[in-house]
Parts: sequence; structure tokens; C-alpha cells
Amino acid sequence: MSQKLPDYSEIVEAHKRIAPYAHRTPVLTSSYFNERTNGEIFFKCENFQKVGAFKFRGAFNAISKLPTSEGKKGIVTHSSGNHAQAVALASRMNGYSATIVMPENAPKVKVNAVRDYGAAIQFCENTTEAREAAAQKIIDETGATFIHPYNHPDVIAGQGTCAKELLEDYPDLDIIIAPVGGGGLISGTGITAKHLKPDITVIAGEPELADDAYRSFKSGKIEPVLRTDTVADGLRTSIGELTFQAIQESVDEIVTVSEQMIIQTMRDIWERMKIIIEPSCAVPLAAILSGKIDIQGKKAGIILTGGNVDLGNLPFGKKEAQP
Amino acid sequence: MSQKLPDYSEIVEAHKRIAPYAHRTPVLTSSYFNERTNGEIFFKCENFQKVGAFKFRGAFNAISKLPTSEGKKGIVTHSSGNHAQAVALASRMNGYSATIVMPENAPKVKVNAVRDYGAAIQFCENTTEAREAAAQKIIDETGATFIHPYNHPDVIAGQGTCAKELLEDYPDLDIIIAPVGGGGLISGTGITAKHLKPDITVIAGEPELADDAYRSFKSGKIEPVLRTDTVADGLRTSIGELTFQAIQESVDEIVTVSEQMIIQTMRDIWERMKIIIEPSCAVPLAAILSGKIDIQGKKAGIILTGGNVDLGNLPFGKKEAQP
Repeated sequence: MSQKLPDYSEIVEAHKRIAPYAHRTPVLTSSYFNERTNGEIFFKCENFQKVGAFKFRGAFNAISKLPTSEGKKGIVTHSSGNHAQAVALASRMNGYSATIVMPENAPKVKVNAVRDYGAAIQFCENTTEAREAAAQKIIDETGATFIHPYNHPDVIAGQGTCAKELLEDYPDLDIIIAPVGGGGLISGTGITAKHLKPDITVIAGEPELADDAYRSFKSGKIEPVLRTDTVADGLRTSIGELTFQAIQESVDEIVTVSEQMIIQTMRDIWERMKIIIEPSCAVPLAAILSGKIDIQGKKAGIILTGGNVDLGNLPFGKKEAQP
Repeated sequence: MSQKLPDYSEIVEAHKRIAPYAHRTPVLTSSYFNERTNGEIFFKCENFQKVGAFKFRGAFNAISKLPTSEGKKGIVTHSSGNHAQAVALASRMNGYSATIVMPENAPKVKVNAVRDYGAAIQFCENTTEAREAAAQKIIDETGATFIHPYNHPDVIAGQGTCAKELLEDYPDLDIIIAPVGGGGLISGTGITAKHLKPDITVIAGEPELADDAYRSFKSGKIEPVLRTDTVADGLRTSIGELTFQAIQESVDEIVTVSEQMIIQTMRDIWERMKIIIEPSCAVPLAAILSGKIDIQGKKAGIILTGGNVDLGNLPFGKKEAQP
């Protein structure tokens, strides 16, 4: 593949492209978490982004960059997560039709969200092969453009705009932390952060149960994800060639956290900050609260990646015991 | 009782008193709800206030206004809700000791929150008589000052600062809506809004199951609340003499909403806005979505009162059915 990682100038271009259409999301702080960590944390709230996740940035950048003649042939992707909604909405906003390949057992709430954004849905069996075959069939028949969820230079450039905004608002961060699933966000974050502030520490947080990036980073070659049952449903995918290269070049450290810490931290953020975040978002703060990242006396930026959760199926415990 | 409603100048004084200590909470908008209602809604987010609720404003104003010689004798109240936490924190911030009378069966999470703010807790039986007797005993023994949760001029003045901020940020609102429980918030809101913009429409939202304010407004005399089982746990109390007077003088309309609409609207706000709100907060928007308030082509301010919910005991349905 002739794909090449974007440099910072492409992230600047991406930002010009998406800024009129994406939210410049707020950065929140919490005196409770600052006291608990003896540091200062700046939470970049992509849960307030369009479609409720940072994924809108990358999808919109990639789709709006297409020549109209290509876009008119349609957009296709396979995803049952936030990327599906992002591609659906970004396609509609560009006047293109989109088809999303989703597994037959995708949650109804996600199917409906994609449909609400005006995309067609092609159901298939819940295997990687079936999904890829279904997408390929559409491409062969229509000439539609496939938008990969993370291993795509324009998607990575779009995701990098999030760190760009955070560092424009808070240029003196010592550390920036994002979760890693497929690696699109951490790649864009690393490229941006190291360009704007070469001495910043870039850290990726990953669930112990889906530690392919951690193992790949150690071994120097891409190691596949072995399990797909972490509660952090946004982080179940394996990194790709392009994102692994970006991680090797611009990430200083990858730390892993337990399922229990992810759930507890997610609940702490809900209770203390009164905002709704997905389990994936809790991973960076969970790494700090587990003692795996020391931010004492430092300023740390954390990207809260999204807020799409099934409220009827939360990972929290049941009714509190009485005193 | 020689109590007198505050006028707007007292709300200005209250604002000077609390501004250095309270958050000036953000005002959020939602294109989704604007499209659904054909209006423009401005949500004043008191769920992001200190202690997670607007109650901090009134408690802090009342307590910080006390002569030090009085405050030093201690502060007392009875509450198992947000007012308890507000009095605990506001007392500590003023250097006073506080005792909160709580029923023996108060949820552990609320007991712990009050304790975390440094207040003493006096447990009692879960009846109005037992609570009042326990509070009176403390007052008799120590000379402590009782801070009523709503029927208190300085508490009402403090709650009025919320509408003051909202109208300073958005002076051209056509309608302002707040929920009514004991009536402290709607009283402060009405006094403030009618002073700043005499032609504004002030509406109170109330659960059908706790419609004492609605019935009192119609009959012209205080009607007691008949049931205390609405899901909107912040709105189970009856209005007081002072708040009823304010409602009669400055509220244009009281509308009631069903339990089902409160729960559905609460869930919609969580899902669409990615913020955590209590059931009570959902009442004003539920009134609009039920068709009981028409905001077509208008600008409506809604006060989201707080975000303290027991995440282990949510009123939402269970796991979504598959498609």
C-alpha cells in the first residue's frame, strides 16, 4: 500500500476543512480529580462532538477531501461503532450516499442512529471476512470509496485536530494521553503534539484485555488482539500498519489498565463531572489513578473520546447498600 | 413569621456574595432538541454547580450572610437531598460547623457525601415530626441557626442568581422554565426574570404525582402534596408560604408532566447531550415535549437543577431488544 502518514501541515489543512462543521469541543477540569492526582488534568470533551465521538473529525476530513466525482459514486465502510455514525453523517453533509456494513447482531440503538443519519445499512454475518466481502462487493458494483476507520492518512489527520485544539487552548501541557484501539486517534495526537511541543510526553492507554498495541510496541512488530471482550468497546480492534508506524515514531509509552479500573473510573467521571463518557474514555484517567502514570505537579491533557453508551445496559453495580 | 420575599437588589447582593465561590455554570444548547421543538432552548447547567446542584447558591448565600457570632454557634438543617450537601459545604467554606438531620434510611451515597463535606449527621426516624424535633433539639442546646431548604428569603435570593446569570448571558429569552418542588428556585427565578425582562413568560414545571404547586396556584391557597413517590426526588416537597407568595406574584403558569415523560426526557437528555441530570431537571423539557408549553419560534431558558443520581439505581429500562 502506498499510504503515507500525514505530517502536521496536513493536520492544519484537515482542521480548516472540518472547523466550520465540527464542534470545537470544550475542555473541562475537575478539582476533585486534580486533588486526587496532585496534578492538573484538562479533559478534551469529544463526547460533545457531532455523533458523540471524535470519529466525526476523521470521517469528515477524509470524505470532504474526496473529488466530487468520486464522492458521487458513494461511500462505504464496515463498523458497528462510532465510525459508522461518523461516516453516515459526514457523507450526508457532503451530499454523498453512504452504505454501512453492519453485523446482523449490531445493537438496535446503533443501527437506528446510522439510519437516522441517512445511510443505507447492509447486514452481514458477524465475521471480519463477511464484513470485508460485503464492503468489497459494494465497491466492485458501484465504485464507492471505502473509508477505513483508522488505517487511513486522512482519517488520522482528522483525528489529529483534536490534540491541535487542546494544545492551542492549553499550550503548556506536560503530558497528553489518549486511548488506543485501532490507533487513529493516538497517531494523530502523537504527530500533532510532538510537532507543537517536542518535549511533551505522549502516552497511549489500553485495556489489559486488548493489549495488542502494548505488545506490538514492545516487540517491534504488529501483534494481533487476542480477545474482544473488554468493556471498552471502542478499543477492541487491532492497530494497523500506518497507525503502528505513527505509534513507534511519536508515542513515548503505552500503559494498560484492568477492566475493574476502567469501570470504576468511568463511574467516577460520571458521578464527579456529571458527563456521560464511554468506557473507552476512562482508560487514560484509569491509568493515572492506578499509579501507572505519575502526573504529580504536572499538567496532563486527556482526550475523552465519546459518549455513546447503551443506557439500558451499563456496567455499573446495582443499588447501593444502605448504611 | 416576619419573613419577606427578597427583591431584585437582594438577588444582586446575593450574587456578589456567592460569585467568588460558586461556579458560573455553562449554558448548553442542542440542535437535536431545537429541531424537535422548533424553538431555541438554552440549558443552564446547575448539574455542574458545586455539590452538583443549584442548592449551593441559596445555602451559601444564607450562611455567609449570618453574623460571625451567630455562625459560630453552628448551622443545622434537615434534608436527605442536595440541600444537605449544600449546607454542609457552605458551612465548611464559612468556617462553621454544621449538623444535618437525616432519616435512618437515607441512601448511603448521600450520607457519605454530607460526611465528606465535613458535617455531623444526626439520624432520626423517617417522619417530618422526628426530623423537626431532632433539629429543634440541636437549636435549643447550641443556639445553631436553622437554614430552611426553600422557605427562607436568603435562600430564595441565592437561587435567583441562577436566572440572573442566564439572562445576563441570553437577555432575549421569551420564556424561562424551572421545576417547582418547595419553590425556592422558581421564586428566585420569577423575581429575577420579571425584574430584568417584565414581558418574559415564567413557567414552573411539576410532576403530576406531586402537583401541590399546580393545585395551590389554581385554588389560591396552599394545598399539601398528597404523594411522595414521583421519580423526580427533588420535587417531592410542598411549597411554603413565602414561595407560594412569590409564585402568585411572578409565575405565569404551572404545568404538570407524567412520570413516563420525565423518565423518557431524562434519558433523551443523557443520550443526546451527554450530560448527567437528575429526574427533576427533565420536568421543564418534558413539559415542552408533551406539548404543554409551545416554544415554536421562541427562545426558552431551562434551568437544569442538578446531577446527583444513584448510578446503581437508574429509572431506565433494561438492555435494548435486538433488531
